[in-house]
Amino acid sequence: MDEFDFIEKYLAPLAGSEGLGLKDDAALFSPTDGYDLVLTQDTLVEGVHFPGGHFGADTAERLLLTNLSDLAAKGAAPFGYLLSIAWPKHLTPKQVAKWMRGFSAGLQGVQELYGFSLFGGDSVRTSGPMMVTACLIGQVPTGKMVKRSGAMPGDDIWVTGHIGEGYLGLLAVQETDTLYEHGPSDDALRQWQEAYYSPEPRLSCRDFLLEYASACADISDGLLADVKHVADASHASAILNIMDIPISKAAQKWANNNGDLMGRLELARGGDDYELVFTSSASNRAALEALPVETIQLTRIGTITEGVGLTCIGLNGEKLNVDKLGYSHL
Amino acid sequence: MDEFDFIEKYLAPLAGSEGLGLKDDAALFSPTDGYDLVLTQDTLVEGVHFPGGHFGADTAERLLLTNLSDLAAKGAAPFGYLLSIAWPKHLTPKQVAKWMRGFSAGLQGVQELYGFSLFGGDSVRTSGPMMVTACLIGQVPTGKMVKRSGAMPGDDIWVTGHIGEGYLGLLAVQETDTLYEHGPSDDALRQWQEAYYSPEPRLSCRDFLLEYASACADISDGLLADVKHVADASHASAILNIMDIPISKAAQKWANNNGDLMGRLELARGGDDYELVFTSSASNRAALEALPVETIQLTRIGTITEGVGLTCIGLNGEKLNVDKLGYSHL
Repeated sequence: MDEFDFIEKYLAPLAGSEGLGLKDDAALFSPTDGYDLVLTQDTLVEGVHFPGGHFGADTAERLLLTNLSDLAAKGAAPFGYLLSIAWPKHLTPKQVAKWMRGFSAGLQGVQELYGFSLFGGDSVRTSGPMMVTACLIGQVPTGKMVKRSGAMPGDDIWVTGHIGEGYLGLLAVQETDTLYEHGPSDDALRQWQEAYYSPEPRLSCRDFLLEYASACADISDGLLADVKHVADASHASAILNIMDIPISKAAQKWANNNGDLMGRLELARGGDDYELVFTSSASNRAALEALPVETIQLTRIGTITEGVGLTCIGLNGEKLNVDKLGYSHL
Repeated sequence: MDEFDFIEKYLAPLAGSEGLGLKDDAALFSPTDGYDLVLTQDTLVEGVHFPGGHFGADTAERLLLTNLSDLAAKGAAPFGYLLSIAWPKHLTPKQVAKWMRGFSAGLQGVQELYGFSLFGGDSVRTSGPMMVTACLIGQVPTGKMVKRSGAMPGDDIWVTGHIGEGYLGLLAVQETDTLYEHGPSDDALRQWQEAYYSPEPRLSCRDFLLEYASACADISDGLLADVKHVADASHASAILNIMDIPISKAAQKWANNNGDLMGRLELARGGDDYELVFTSSASNRAALEALPVETIQLTRIGTITEGVGLTCIGLNGEKLNVDKLGYSHL
């Protein structure tokens, strides 16, 4: 099976009309009047961003879901993507074909769930680990994209869902001994691993983000790091109340066993949450609190002020000395 | 130097306004009324698509130029790109910073030459070889993109420039003994290596392609393979006159030393040309022949007919048995 057979069999069925059957050098589409385009590109490396040997549906899902999370943070709706896959050379064409069944099924599942299609891409071989890159294209009403840089002093800081689930999932996937010391339940382990492998991009937040958010970021590097990114980009300062950070019951148990505040800080630094952190004028507080709970859990965790940097507040209102904010891959 | 410093120092200066200073999760742009968008994505792997250890300007240029060639084949004008870089883990941050100076200068040179800018991307580390992926965005007047699939029986097949220069350049770069056997001149070696490292994307062909071409492809896999791709996509057959394929004087000398016809076939299979092969109604022949020579050398090398497959014609009109058309990476 050469490159063309492989694309024809496993990827062409995923292509939208824009992909021209993946038989052309390029994809073609006509933008919709009244919309801006939002583009985001992420690369996952085997052994860094996903565990070694996971060439199947898990990896395909994670690639698309984490990229979709970037679009969600912008208030954008996805409509297509380009995909580059680098397969390790040591895999035979037959092995690639086997893995590709799961991989393409993973892509298809996410495409169908969020309503977008494959536009094109590339397939190569590498002597190194598997690497996959997706460039996602989304659209947002003209002039409405939520930037990282729009936070204003006085704005509230909000976060969606629970923080730390993806981080605990990573510890579980890595079989980290300290995670198991206090005996997390099987349900907790499953919940965390699922959060890590299949983060849910918060695309359902689009309407209220476009209406109320002054700035937004998805939480990939860690809550503390990503709040600081928003503050820095907005030339402002952020104050975060660590005890207000929403965590699940299972994560609360884990945090309690790790000194509560210290445990919470670890979760807030952990990354891989793919929840959204956004800022909004205090005048929108009532409107955000009135949103139906089914939409998404929203929690107010801090405030934007004049100045620079991030200040973390502990249990009794004390300022915490937090020097390492999150994880950076380079 | 962490990922953010590195992006700030070397990549942010290359970003257009659409890249939001590379401080956001995504790029944002408003499409121009009256234009369709064309997207293409290619990945280069160290040791496969560029020589090992070449992390500098050469590699950056090659990445953008080969992607631009895809846009050129569509009659599209580039206006932005997203870039993912995977740096080998064994490089220290200091080494990455050193390489990055040349790499970003290479990007900048190509951007300035063809008038487009960086929109965003990703930077990761890998335990394997360096890998770079670019997703280029171009635009073309609505409904005018030249597809690979538009060739019609009776159309002429045309090619730009000279074929085989990039292939001979690759042999030179690989220090292939057989290349040196018949003593090519220093000028020839330099010319071929330049063709390999810095192929010129045929963006200057845009106007006449949009006016006259029924189908087009850039020649990356090899002239024979790419003509067959056009024929297959167009549900038609192609007849190529091997002796009409334009080659440079230096390549002609090399071909003569390799049995002329056999040498020409090798050049036509070689790949890495980044010239364009296009089809056009025979009624456009006079108009294409009348184009100013300064624009680009055009040569008519065959005909599209009913049927399937590719037929190659030799010196005395005989049909050649050509089974291996080109090079595929997978």
